[in-house]
Amino acid sequence: MSSLEVRNIGCLATPVGTTARRGKEQGEIRRIANAAVRAENGRFVFVGGDADYAREHAGKAAEISIDAAGRAVIPGLVDAHTHPVWLGDRGAEIGRRLAGETYATIAAEGGGINATVRATRAGSDAALSSTVRGRLRAMLAHGTTTAEAKSGYGLTVRDEIRALELLRSLGGDPDLPRLVPTVLAAHEIPPEFQHDRGEWVRLVAEEIVPRAARENLARFADVFCEQGVFTVEESRTILESARQAGLGLRVHADELALSGGARLAAELRAASADHLLFIGAGEIAALAAAGTVAVVLPGTAWWMRSRRAPARDLVAAGVPVAIASDANPGTCFTESLPSVAAHACLDSGLSVEETLTGMTLNAAASLGLAAEVGSLEPGKRADLVVLDAPDDRHLVYHWGVNLAATVVRDGRIAWSRPS
Amino acid sequence: MSSLEVRNIGCLATPVGTTARRGKEQGEIRRIANAAVRAENGRFVFVGGDADYAREHAGKAAEISIDAAGRAVIPGLVDAHTHPVWLGDRGAEIGRRLAGETYATIAAEGGGINATVRATRAGSDAALSSTVRGRLRAMLAHGTTTAEAKSGYGLTVRDEIRALELLRSLGGDPDLPRLVPTVLAAHEIPPEFQHDRGEWVRLVAEEIVPRAARENLARFADVFCEQGVFTVEESRTILESARQAGLGLRVHADELALSGGARLAAELRAASADHLLFIGAGEIAALAAAGTVAVVLPGTAWWMRSRRAPARDLVAAGVPVAIASDANPGTCFTESLPSVAAHACLDSGLSVEETLTGMTLNAAASLGLAAEVGSLEPGKRADLVVLDAPDDRHLVYHWGVNLAATVVRDGRIAWSRPS
Repeated sequence: MSSLEVRNIGCLATPVGTTARRGKEQGEIRRIANAAVRAENGRFVFVGGDADYAREHAGKAAEISIDAAGRAVIPGLVDAHTHPVWLGDRGAEIGRRLAGETYATIAAEGGGINATVRATRAGSDAALSSTVRGRLRAMLAHGTTTAEAKSGYGLTVRDEIRALELLRSLGGDPDLPRLVPTVLAAHEIPPEFQHDRGEWVRLVAEEIVPRAARENLARFADVFCEQGVFTVEESRTILESARQAGLGLRVHADELALSGGARLAAELRAASADHLLFIGAGEIAALAAAGTVAVVLPGTAWWMRSRRAPARDLVAAGVPVAIASDANPGTCFTESLPSVAAHACLDSGLSVEETLTGMTLNAAASLGLAAEVGSLEPGKRADLVVLDAPDDRHLVYHWGVNLAATVVRDGRIAWSRPS
Repeated sequence: MSSLEVRNIGCLATPVGTTARRGKEQGEIRRIANAAVRAENGRFVFVGGDADYAREHAGKAAEISIDAAGRAVIPGLVDAHTHPVWLGDRGAEIGRRLAGETYATIAAEGGGINATVRATRAGSDAALSSTVRGRLRAMLAHGTTTAEAKSGYGLTVRDEIRALELLRSLGGDPDLPRLVPTVLAAHEIPPEFQHDRGEWVRLVAEEIVPRAARENLARFADVFCEQGVFTVEESRTILESARQAGLGLRVHADELALSGGARLAAELRAASADHLLFIGAGEIAALAAAGTVAVVLPGTAWWMRSRRAPARDLVAAGVPVAIASDANPGTCFTESLPSVAAHACLDSGLSVEETLTGMTLNAAASLGLAAEVGSLEPGKRADLVVLDAPDDRHLVYHWGVNLAATVVRDGRIAWSRPS
């Protein structure tokens, strides 16, 4: 029987529960000073005070024993929105955009998302696998033990399936985050279908999505429902096909304008509606009524120099809010969910506690995993992060550097900072 | 004779020159593809194409040979404004501020800067030394090879001198950034002098500053010239004493309101005026005429949820702009200058190239070191960073993670990412 203990935790901080936390509950974090945890067979069996632990588990050995030395421990982070499967380099393009050129100019020259699609399609399986593995490994090293991961830079039947097959093969690696794959063939109209978009929508709805479900390559389907990308009707067609195939639903909604994505997500009772920069009170109420999790991506809003999602209004209306990285090559290139978290606080007005719930339990709830991960509680999978800090608040306060000292996934040390 | 070479550099990027770059020059970065550099006795002797290097230096061995493997190389970063000498933990206070409480409320309960001052005074020399060393080591690991470092959390004669003596002792460590110490006894009116502020100004101007100069403990003096802190007249008294003692001048100017700090810096031809959030066109013109470097601290403006310094206007007016971290426990707790740099681009509208000049050559110029560091050129000290990226633009583009793979200071590997 494998066992792990963490002793001498200065501050253990976690949300509590097996469902999404909304309203005031989103900011309720249980903090235990002088804490300990124990895991057996990959699940927590004890979370509490170190003195209680010493009494209750006296004499029991642990195969792995970590001395937190007064530092903080939080749940393994859950990143509910990532795009890790891509190749190519758009550094020069980003430099031009930061110097004032528009995305439209660059896209007209073959840059933008199509540059990523071309490079991803052209890359070998080996190159793609090694690059994506490196990215996921970096996510884990910054504290992410569960990550949703989307396809969407293949945009052919073959290349979308290749992306999902790669995620399945990497999903078995205990040194990477636990992966929750999402088919996002509806990320963009591929260049080949610019003049026959209906045919691409048909391919996605009738071939790619059902196949991804049938071959167990995805748990969710997602659509970029937006002005200039997929219309509400096209999005509905794809999402209804996904629902029929047994997949959960996620929606890129109202990122660039109020386009109807959040309304559609609520109507279809999607697991999540993501971005939400342009939603208003009506959309917020619809999400609250539907029980859809709002996945807020504050790193992306910052990088796009756009408005911010109304995170405070979402919390006030009782919509569970998750905070995710949106890791992607065009609008938010980072593997660090904590770096994004600081923006949730500073740009979007969430408290540290609301943000911590947002990148643990509420993110897990949006992935249908709230009973399994997202908090430090007996019975849940033993995922945790030892921070190089006295306190969980440092995850936001001490920004721009990686505070993860040790990352445990399934009761096993998956990463430790080299000394 | 010690020697080092870096071969196979995919993209070498550097500003050029031995003086501050202003106006359009701030954005002029020399990029060399397929480059190499060589250093002997701690200084560059070759910076150019790898093919030229192979020809010119054929057969010459190098004690240290780094294969950049197609990655980017930039100058060692120069951080022109840091506050690394402190103890204590204000994580809980920051959490309260992010949840909506005001600094005034927290300060009235004994929090804020005075909490840091109390903890710093109370800490042992050993604790202070080891903590500050760790912080400086983290700066180096994020690419900073030269750092200005201020006292200012002692606020007694003894404690200010202790901070500067610590910086001198750490300054000899080749695994830390090269340190440029600044006496900032005028960081705040100490609690003991709240009712006799004139006496503290006298102590700073007549005792601490002259002693710091006489004992060679500081190269610069700085004053927090601001409404509610030190008046323009108090600041002038202290800065004139510093000038007479042979120190260079820096000024915390117009951070919280238009308080006269930038005007004073220009009048006294200070080396730098720092923060500058509230300056207008008149102050900008005065800085340009004086040749004072504007040290912009965009991480702090972000954390304070304040306005941004008018970086674009400063560049347009011909003021050399430096970008610095302001690393400190109250308003910007990070050791990563690149993390701050992303805010210079996204929040303040600088290009990647202007930002790179701002955290290398212009920062060096503000420290009187532009002939020594801040660019990759023969004759300068061999400080460089190998980035885990194909291109220098990734330093901003690929944000929130540490891209430094190898950091060289004085021709010697000072830090390398553990594999």
